[in-house]
Amino acid sequence: MEKPYVVGIDMGGTNTKFGIVDARGNVLNSSSIKTQQYTDINEYCDILCQEIMKLVEAQGGIEMVRGVGAGAPNANYYTGNIENAANLPWKGIVPFAEMISERLGVPCRITNDANAAAMGEMTYGVAKGMKNFIMITLGTGVGSGIVIDGKVVYGHDGFAGELGHTKIIRDASARECGCGQKGCIEAYASANGVARTAQEWLSTSDRKSLLREIPLDKVTSKDVFDAAMKGDEMAKQIFEYTGDLLGQKLADFVAFSAPEAIVLFGGLTKAGDILMEPIVRSLNTNVVRFWKNKVKVLFSSLKDSDAAILGASALVWDVDAHAPMSKTTTTAE
Amino acid sequence: MEKPYVVGIDMGGTNTKFGIVDARGNVLNSSSIKTQQYTDINEYCDILCQEIMKLVEAQGGIEMVRGVGAGAPNANYYTGNIENAANLPWKGIVPFAEMISERLGVPCRITNDANAAAMGEMTYGVAKGMKNFIMITLGTGVGSGIVIDGKVVYGHDGFAGELGHTKIIRDASARECGCGQKGCIEAYASANGVARTAQEWLSTSDRKSLLREIPLDKVTSKDVFDAAMKGDEMAKQIFEYTGDLLGQKLADFVAFSAPEAIVLFGGLTKAGDILMEPIVRSLNTNVVRFWKNKVKVLFSSLKDSDAAILGASALVWDVDAHAPMSKTTTTAE
Repeated sequence: MEKPYVVGIDMGGTNTKFGIVDARGNVLNSSSIKTQQYTDINEYCDILCQEIMKLVEAQGGIEMVRGVGAGAPNANYYTGNIENAANLPWKGIVPFAEMISERLGVPCRITNDANAAAMGEMTYGVAKGMKNFIMITLGTGVGSGIVIDGKVVYGHDGFAGELGHTKIIRDASARECGCGQKGCIEAYASANGVARTAQEWLSTSDRKSLLREIPLDKVTSKDVFDAAMKGDEMAKQIFEYTGDLLGQKLADFVAFSAPEAIVLFGGLTKAGDILMEPIVRSLNTNVVRFWKNKVKVLFSSLKDSDAAILGASALVWDVDAHAPMSKTTTTAE
Repeated sequence: MEKPYVVGIDMGGTNTKFGIVDARGNVLNSSSIKTQQYTDINEYCDILCQEIMKLVEAQGGIEMVRGVGAGAPNANYYTGNIENAANLPWKGIVPFAEMISERLGVPCRITNDANAAAMGEMTYGVAKGMKNFIMITLGTGVGSGIVIDGKVVYGHDGFAGELGHTKIIRDASARECGCGQKGCIEAYASANGVARTAQEWLSTSDRKSLLREIPLDKVTSKDVFDAAMKGDEMAKQIFEYTGDLLGQKLADFVAFSAPEAIVLFGGLTKAGDILMEPIVRSLNTNVVRFWKNKVKVLFSSLKDSDAAILGASALVWDVDAHAPMSKTTTTAE
């Protein structure tokens, strides 16, 4: 009998969420642990697998589980390793898929978080049925998962889809990005980027703004959104500026893979129309003419809390996948 | 018995070249006609097919021919149409694959010229054996063919790979591009772009240069190269500037599909090291750190005269291809 469930893991810098998912994309139960609490990767994996087993037992035991899919920063689909992730407590190369597989006795496949989101969107979300789309995650940073002909693009080394680190500003004013480069779109169109824009504009002008009620270094993208909703002109212009820059980059991305749609996901998308409108306007102003008004820009339809778990789980349902699943060492197939 | 030959057509704005190719990539014989001479597409196709049949007869007749592959500007792989090509005499939508197939009685498949070059490079050139690379054609314009997992990327509508129309300059100084946008890399890193840089620099400074011996509006990229070879400082700096801009864009392209190599093709590559050195330096300065010094930049190894014919012919040998070949209407399969 086909094993009916998959475990999905969404490893973030702060929290690691995980859940049991069925083939229809229902998250049957879920839980989380604090990622940063475990400086030893072995201890982290031990605790994570113990907690996963509690969920698994509640669903009939590990015999019901086909495999584990995990989305994690800097995860390499080809090797199953997490490599030099800046926002995780473990440095160097971590053979994560193997470590999970050893502990749970089922195969494990991993990919980076944005690719996991793309898988989830294609399997369960607004990109269902689409063969060509680009997923852009607008969270603390800007991530991307590119789908061409129904497959996530991994490239030669497994690290394809780093669109957050393509350049939008190339002059002397370009902001430093966390990646060590300057002018990356991540430094502008992420939640952090919006906060930086606000801080820059507030500190270099005398314009009135509700944002001045907040200590400069404490202003967040959420504050900018709240101020914009109250009609604050500067706050509205910050979203206009952010959307315009992102739209310019989306025009470049369209010229690459000619997607049917671009799907936006992550915390910053909660801004809604105030972000979407300038993005769409800028995309259609800047794109090569035969794509004008032809490429859909959509917000993800997946629930925030479930999307990454679902996306990670979709890795295991994906029968076409070309990466080997890590070997199981404690059970026979 | 497997039919041993394929016809390759390379349609350019000026000349249309064509030849008979065997499965090993030998161009057995070839010829050409003037594209611009035929303002009626029917007349063009009649003459082209008559000339092709002369080559075919010399190789044993049409029974020996498996199909026709054509590379052409704005050619759509999915539909077999040439759509609104700015540099061709025929406007609107031309059902080229069907027109050729009707006349020759064998299937025809078409793609844009840069994709044809990528196919040729993958089948017969420096990208042989590579599954992930990007072909950049540096001719009158800048074209691109993107290969992921061994397949040319066509995208949702068949027009993927317009990297020449991604932006390198986004400020008020950005040059007009032939596509109607401003600041596209095509306006800088093509043969025309190099000539424009020379004309701009000559007209806005008093610097000494051998290029001043040529009337300003007659300066070509070839003149700039010749002057650079004679040690002209301005000419050398023009190639430095061109390579730097192109390298910056290549860094963005790498972040998209993580290719094993970028292959450069076309007239401008005759400049050799004087162009390659700044490209490679700029790519490695601007790329996300884990790709630094890891992505090969190569010049095409195919003979200029044969490359596009070979590339177009490779479309027919490509058994994995997902576009239907145009139906043959005059012979049974």
